[in-house]
Amino acid sequence: MPNPTAAMLVIGDEILSGRTRDANMHFLAGQLTQAGIDLREVRVVSDDRDAIIKAVRSLSDGYDHVFTSGGIGPTHDDITADCIAAAFDTPIDIRDDARALLQAHYDASGKELNDARLRMARIPDGAALIDNPVSVAPGFTLHNVYVMAGVPSVFQAMVASVLPSLVGGAPLQSRTLPLMKGEGDVAAPLAAFAKEHSDISVGSYPFQKEGVYGTNLVLRGQDADRLDAALEGLKKVFDV
Amino acid sequence: MPNPTAAMLVIGDEILSGRTRDANMHFLAGQLTQAGIDLREVRVVSDDRDAIIKAVRSLSDGYDHVFTSGGIGPTHDDITADCIAAAFDTPIDIRDDARALLQAHYDASGKELNDARLRMARIPDGAALIDNPVSVAPGFTLHNVYVMAGVPSVFQAMVASVLPSLVGGAPLQSRTLPLMKGEGDVAAPLAAFAKEHSDISVGSYPFQKEGVYGTNLVLRGQDADRLDAALEGLKKVFDV
Repeated sequence: MPNPTAAMLVIGDEILSGRTRDANMHFLAGQLTQAGIDLREVRVVSDDRDAIIKAVRSLSDGYDHVFTSGGIGPTHDDITADCIAAAFDTPIDIRDDARALLQAHYDASGKELNDARLRMARIPDGAALIDNPVSVAPGFTLHNVYVMAGVPSVFQAMVASVLPSLVGGAPLQSRTLPLMKGEGDVAAPLAAFAKEHSDISVGSYPFQKEGVYGTNLVLRGQDADRLDAALEGLKKVFDV
Repeated sequence: MPNPTAAMLVIGDEILSGRTRDANMHFLAGQLTQAGIDLREVRVVSDDRDAIIKAVRSLSDGYDHVFTSGGIGPTHDDITADCIAAAFDTPIDIRDDARALLQAHYDASGKELNDARLRMARIPDGAALIDNPVSVAPGFTLHNVYVMAGVPSVFQAMVASVLPSLVGGAPLQSRTLPLMKGEGDVAAPLAAFAKEHSDISVGSYPFQKEGVYGTNLVLRGQDADRLDAALEGLKKVFDV
């Protein structure tokens, strides 16, 4: 059975303006690979209502799971929850269970649960809350979309809350053979090898080390024994 | 006049599997912001022909400029050039000017211009070459799509080759006011401020520093004087 597929939607002007370097994509990619879920596409869009709605609909239709990061805080530019509701034509309002979480948290810390903070309790009808052990304000799941915070520590905690509930396939594993040869020298035998091993993914990634060109050959698949055998075969091809 | 718009397409399984952390998006975002070109969307897709063609068509239709990174090397998984040609229904073949660049380079370094390396001279009809001062194999421009390498040093050199030829608007500038207050405490006055200053973009980015929550308020716009005046106004709102 093929692995479930996934896409990610990163929401935030600060990434697109170059102010902030996104860290969540790389984190999620590693987690999904381990869980046996194939991340097939990532989109980054700005804090723009139409752009978010369009991307959510397109990705939700195209993949088994969609993970979003960003735009669920208390300020005027946090519009993700409302956009998710709109994307699925679902009503959204402050929900009692989310409000109770926030109320307990702010009571304990002596801060006021003001109108701005209450916006973080706006949850689309029918969504399930995603636990936030870092800063309490929850994410939520609606249909196949997991809506999470952009702050990396919170995003990571929410991914940890969500992932165990998803059924993945066999984790994707990899074997790497580093060669101190340029890609142009390995390309022809590598292409022949890839053709003979069509059940595994064969990739080639050039690098430069102290002025010398090298290439990492990477084999990916779900069967460890098969990968080990293929790696031995690959070593023979390149006499290492 | 509004600034020209741009999108980026990152091509590569190694990003989506979590093996490699993309560096080109953050670099390009900063460069475009400086040049007065608005980066509105980024997509990351795998080395999959249909996915690349679909993304190229969609982004080329939707934005003034499209920048791609990855998949133009000599190996079997480097399929970007052929996909760009297919996206625009344009023939592609080895082109004499690109071949001559490679021939001179490999002659000088004593390496063979073999069939694999010759693939890097495959250029769609009507495309203009993009100079590659790092490793010679050129990128190319077809219509509004700039096709560049994924290796960060080469990508950066190609961006430097391309950007001066593009007409940007006024560079987007920013002013940041860091506050040691949580987003929930600044949200209401900030929303009012944003409403009164609809000609500039007002963003809010939470951070955590030694266990204390803070918020960076960021004003963005093209008029430095206007931004300076707005920053003074913002300081008054928050008594700093």
